[in-house]
Amino acid sequence: MDFDTLRPNIRAMAGYTPGEQPRDGDWLKLNTNENPYPPSPKVFEAIRSALTGDRLRKYPDPLGTEFRKTAGQVLGVDPDGILIGNGSDDILTILTRAFVPEGGTIVSLTPSYLLYKTLANIQGANFETIPFAYDWSLPQPRPIPWANLIFIANPNSPSGTMVQQAAIESWLDDFDGTIVIDEAYADFAETNMLPLAQQGKNVIVTRTFSKSYALAGMRFGFAVADPALVRELVKVKDSYNCDVLSLASATAAIADQEYFREIRSKIIATRQRMEAELAGLGFDVTPSQSNFIWCRRSNRPVEPIYQELKKRFILVRHMRYEGYGDGLRISVGTDAEVDRLLAELRTIV
Amino acid sequence: MDFDTLRPNIRAMAGYTPGEQPRDGDWLKLNTNENPYPPSPKVFEAIRSALTGDRLRKYPDPLGTEFRKTAGQVLGVDPDGILIGNGSDDILTILTRAFVPEGGTIVSLTPSYLLYKTLANIQGANFETIPFAYDWSLPQPRPIPWANLIFIANPNSPSGTMVQQAAIESWLDDFDGTIVIDEAYADFAETNMLPLAQQGKNVIVTRTFSKSYALAGMRFGFAVADPALVRELVKVKDSYNCDVLSLASATAAIADQEYFREIRSKIIATRQRMEAELAGLGFDVTPSQSNFIWCRRSNRPVEPIYQELKKRFILVRHMRYEGYGDGLRISVGTDAEVDRLLAELRTIV
Repeated sequence: MDFDTLRPNIRAMAGYTPGEQPRDGDWLKLNTNENPYPPSPKVFEAIRSALTGDRLRKYPDPLGTEFRKTAGQVLGVDPDGILIGNGSDDILTILTRAFVPEGGTIVSLTPSYLLYKTLANIQGANFETIPFAYDWSLPQPRPIPWANLIFIANPNSPSGTMVQQAAIESWLDDFDGTIVIDEAYADFAETNMLPLAQQGKNVIVTRTFSKSYALAGMRFGFAVADPALVRELVKVKDSYNCDVLSLASATAAIADQEYFREIRSKIIATRQRMEAELAGLGFDVTPSQSNFIWCRRSNRPVEPIYQELKKRFILVRHMRYEGYGDGLRISVGTDAEVDRLLAELRTIV
Repeated sequence: MDFDTLRPNIRAMAGYTPGEQPRDGDWLKLNTNENPYPPSPKVFEAIRSALTGDRLRKYPDPLGTEFRKTAGQVLGVDPDGILIGNGSDDILTILTRAFVPEGGTIVSLTPSYLLYKTLANIQGANFETIPFAYDWSLPQPRPIPWANLIFIANPNSPSGTMVQQAAIESWLDDFDGTIVIDEAYADFAETNMLPLAQQGKNVIVTRTFSKSYALAGMRFGFAVADPALVRELVKVKDSYNCDVLSLASATAAIADQEYFREIRSKIIATRQRMEAELAGLGFDVTPSQSNFIWCRRSNRPVEPIYQELKKRFILVRHMRYEGYGDGLRISVGTDAEVDRLLAELRTIV
């Protein structure tokens, strides 16, 4: 077959490698930041109730009106300023297509979420990185003024750290492009940038239900932005990008804030214990505002530890960044799961 | 907010308008070619069974291995030649991004599916149309040799007609670009072009579960292409573009061929009766190989009929094409639904 009909940027790119998803065996998965607790019982009720009537055979609501109303109320944002997505990956793709021409420029900090580079590759855009300052803050002043889109994962992956609102605001002061704040992990942090997305600035905040709402399997995310901008972004998304059961799941999940707070508190408590224990085992632990912990060793690579854990059926994420070195990103599990991890680590290190 | 950061093609475009989806009231929906019958009972079983265990909180299989194995067996195609999508809209988007650069050219026949123009607009590509021959066949020889991608809806919407494999093959003979055969409705037709997609030619066939499998609400579609090409296309799709319940639904649905054949036969029988009755009411009816019927009136517009039906809570799709005129695209319902439609039409025309 004649593959020179493919765009050269597609042929040249490597593609994004998602975290390992073993289908068989009794694995302890601490590699993709899934929630160790099940989604709210209300989610299961909502799915079962959506199975009655004719909802599977009919197209879903293209705009997710019910979800937007509920989420708007819970988060205190205008429902018209919410864009629904098939996971926040879908939202990031929509934003790339809306803002970045072929040959344009996407900027990300580094080390950060590797998908941003893939998004640039697919779009045929340039990808440039800005190193975080040594303390994971934003370098000032903002470099790369010609960026069409700057992605800031906040909290950042793999570090779990946050940059401050004032630092982002100072980047915005003299920048005509758009900043996307990827808040996949913001529900585990002390603060978030939703206010910035509602102030008519060039800021879009994205969220996912894969982490704090324990719905990675259901693929649901959203963006918060100026309502006039959301009307433009709707033109770029697939009309029916969210299915009827993911819409029902997300609506039920965000409506159940009591359950949400309960599992969030448990994860944060376990995270604090993990941080102390990992530091006690000799890791350089970066204090996390997320549902994972970034650990390194100052004097040697950590890949052998990743391999040893894998032999023991524990998956963590080993990451290596050019000019930076490697580290382990370990998701916060249940207390029992973390005990198993720590027990194995004690025998390994 | 400063919208000149959006790409000019996005600002300029109108966006695709999906068929009306009223949420309230007792509407008879014959406007978006949904299946009038529920999905297979096996689909509901599969969803309920996926709700046990931890499948909602974990990421789904990015490649849909189980679905590809099952579909490959049912359709007699190589599972590695199947690409999964969040509806066939997602597949069409992936193909556009893989093959069409900004400033490239997408070609569609006309009158046909209006989404192809939207895909070109979003990509910043040119859109050119080729009129069908008077009998809805492909004009020969193929015009527009510089097209990156040619979309052929087959059966076509709104006409419900098919073009022949030999005609497509003759287009391929001297064409270096890629032809996408959008087979959203092929399950209702006497033939399909899956063999062409397996012969190492520049042909990709796309399918959806929204029509023949009664799963419009679940968003699932797929493409069949050369396995080496599918490996490239995987780089362009979102990693987790299909959720765990849509994968479970689609796998269960395609495995239940007995149910599939049963509802397909009913729809084809009702379609034949509708064709005769609509012709008896004075419509110009195009013989359909799909689950809808295209009716026009030779001497006057049909929009008033659309409006009158709407007053009576019956939705059909009124479509108008430049240089061609208008028509009604009416989905095939159950026999009782079609009786209601025909009774109302008798009082209107």
